[in-house]
Amino acid sequence: MVAADTATGQILMQGYADRAAYLETLATAEAVYFSTSRKKRWKKGETSGHVQVVRDVLIDCDGDAIIYVVEQRGPGACHTNARSCFYRDFLGQRQEPVTDGDSERLETLDTPVAERLLTP
Amino acid sequence: MVAADTATGQILMQGYADRAAYLETLATAEAVYFSTSRKKRWKKGETSGHVQVVRDVLIDCDGDAIIYVVEQRGPGACHTNARSCFYRDFLGQRQEPVTDGDSERLETLDTPVAERLLTP
Repeated sequence: MVAADTATGQILMQGYADRAAYLETLATAEAVYFSTSRKKRWKKGETSGHVQVVRDVLIDCDGDAIIYVVEQRGPGACHTNARSCFYRDFLGQRQEPVTDGDSERLETLDTPVAERLLTP
Repeated sequence: MVAADTATGQILMQGYADRAAYLETLATAEAVYFSTSRKKRWKKGETSGHVQVVRDVLIDCDGDAIIYVVEQRGPGACHTNARSCFYRDFLGQRQEPVTDGDSERLETLDTPVAERLLTP
């Protein structure tokens, strides 16, 4: 599932919600996820205050994917304070400045592939 | 991972790509996925012709989520011919007309929850 900005449609982050997290989101209108690594409920902004106020929830055709359409409070959805967690392309080039450098390093790929992708 | 429309940013579908699908996407600039249910490579539009021409690939902060930024060929990304697979909200209300009715039925939820979500 993903969270998208209600005003711009920008994809802010990808996460996972189990049934309990999904129902808590619907009941509170603030986004709740389930951390598959820590295996626990995770409410966005619980410590930072950067909650996601949920304005709509969209479901896909086969009912197994969800979009939380949200108002993101604070600077952004990302722990780097970027607006979106998707602030760079597959070559690692930044699409958006970040204020915190602790994102993972990407493998970079061959230039010809990049040129093919980036040259319409 | 998700596919998003390059012109509008609209989220078209959610899917999964293994490493081979991801690399084939980069090499061909057409979106390839991996079907977790059928456990096989799946090239979008291989039979329908409704391919996704990939214009960019975005990676999230921790490197485990991907956005294919695409030009969707044909009527849409969804097997229902909807532009997006996310054509309805969590109450099952249609956000976009579809031409094929074979999407799964959703459980609907309590009205008070809906009212809270839908009334800013």
